[in-house]
Amino acid sequence: MSSTSDATTEVLGLLRSHGETVSAFLGSLRFRYPDAPARLLEAIDYSLLAGGKRLRPALVLETARACGAPLASPAAVAAAGAIELIHTFSLVHDDLPAMDDDDLRRGRPTSHKVFGEAMAILAGDAMVTMAFHIVAVDAPPAIAAPLIAELASASGPAGMIGGQVLDIDGENQALALPQLQDVHRKKTGALLTASCRLGAIAAGCAPGDTKLAAVTEFGRHLGLAFQIVDDILDVTSTPEQLGKATNKDAGRGKNTYPGLIGMEPSRKEAARQLTAALDSLAPLGADADGLRALARFVVERDV
Amino acid sequence: MSSTSDATTEVLGLLRSHGETVSAFLGSLRFRYPDAPARLLEAIDYSLLAGGKRLRPALVLETARACGAPLASPAAVAAAGAIELIHTFSLVHDDLPAMDDDDLRRGRPTSHKVFGEAMAILAGDAMVTMAFHIVAVDAPPAIAAPLIAELASASGPAGMIGGQVLDIDGENQALALPQLQDVHRKKTGALLTASCRLGAIAAGCAPGDTKLAAVTEFGRHLGLAFQIVDDILDVTSTPEQLGKATNKDAGRGKNTYPGLIGMEPSRKEAARQLTAALDSLAPLGADADGLRALARFVVERDV
Repeated sequence: MSSTSDATTEVLGLLRSHGETVSAFLGSLRFRYPDAPARLLEAIDYSLLAGGKRLRPALVLETARACGAPLASPAAVAAAGAIELIHTFSLVHDDLPAMDDDDLRRGRPTSHKVFGEAMAILAGDAMVTMAFHIVAVDAPPAIAAPLIAELASASGPAGMIGGQVLDIDGENQALALPQLQDVHRKKTGALLTASCRLGAIAAGCAPGDTKLAAVTEFGRHLGLAFQIVDDILDVTSTPEQLGKATNKDAGRGKNTYPGLIGMEPSRKEAARQLTAALDSLAPLGADADGLRALARFVVERDV
Repeated sequence: MSSTSDATTEVLGLLRSHGETVSAFLGSLRFRYPDAPARLLEAIDYSLLAGGKRLRPALVLETARACGAPLASPAAVAAAGAIELIHTFSLVHDDLPAMDDDDLRRGRPTSHKVFGEAMAILAGDAMVTMAFHIVAVDAPPAIAAPLIAELASASGPAGMIGGQVLDIDGENQALALPQLQDVHRKKTGALLTASCRLGAIAAGCAPGDTKLAAVTEFGRHLGLAFQIVDDILDVTSTPEQLGKATNKDAGRGKNTYPGLIGMEPSRKEAARQLTAALDSLAPLGADADGLRALARFVVERDV
């Protein structure tokens, strides 16, 4: 019992520490754009500093540490900020009336509800450019290029954005499990896998490096586990708990794990993916204990 | 008379040659994303291969040549493709119902009219990631990082996207000339200036380089001239000539040069900016003759 609660304390401390690093970094970004319209910066900060879990940046920073980067290396911090910018942009656009049409996000009215649709579209657009900007400027050029290639590939047409297209196309039609897995792998998995790979690349890992291969496998299994848990929480939680609308998947005819294979098999599959994720980390030994704790948190979380 | 028509022939040949280079490059991009949803790639290609003037890529490629880059160097071609991706993404999002709400673009129905709003938003988003992706992958890392920093800065919150915000905010309120110039400098000027700077950086120019400073000045004056001419054409052309709605600035209460200072003074200011642009190119000597021809074309064009 006490070991579980110690582990929980440890992972919460880890998330808080990495979260503070990236939040401070993101909060300072507006000062890089003194000539930008104030209202645009306000809309960007509204979504960016709304207090998400900062899971993706924590994965970047913890993977970088596990792979031997110095604490808070500029490349790792920029990559962590960049992935949160990309993630936040995708939420802002996903919530738009023409997309998922959501009113609530991170416990507050969505961006377009506060700033109007045009500004929400432009704030999202701006966040994408900022993500690539900070990596190009802050990381050493030899590392910036592969970091940006990774980030762009994971978020682009064959990654996250492709997954959003598949998700919309799949509404109100029955998908088979492999199709649902493809949606998940792209829409959520690509960015979570990239988080781990970015950390390794920021630490100096090149293609073919054992550590890079290990965290890539880890990220893939973790990404799938994350999305299964997300599907489960959409059914079992209240809006107050999640800070966003719940039960919306069913209402919108979205395909989910519980809907497709049932609740209990979904829990088992999440646990199986967690085990596979943890197994992938073997080559990193004790250096990956933080990543292991984060992975358990992802699957056992209730928000 | 014959020298004017020779010059016209020359610049049309230059535009065609650079246009073919970048169109071939853009047309091949889909093969980099074999795992992307087909409908998304279709929406991207619909806007990207609709046959624009390719002015920005031509400026990148011609500036690169003027600054000594080998013809069709991978860095210059990637930067040329990237700037066209950013430009096209901005048109697709600008045309959305929540923004300018336009039905016609490059002589065809706008993206959201054909593919729906959600897909138009996502296709635009995807194009931004692709722009940074191709530069990160195709250019040597030491050049990729400054190219991406330039591209992201010019398109971001203090550049093009900031200009779109100012443009929307300025509708139906009278702007003073300095405010209108600020809108133009950001909304159109930033990307045109960046086109010239990208070419110089692709050719190996570092900050402080005389050639980079010269093409930066050139780009600033050219950008302003371009937007003044755009404002004039919106009043004097038909939709058939421009391939998009005209007279929409006045209908929407937009601030324009002719509206603010009158038609004839606007023409004079465009000519004055052209002269300043040409003067900026002195340090490049005869190597910049192609850029000079492109600049004259921009101001004297009727589409």
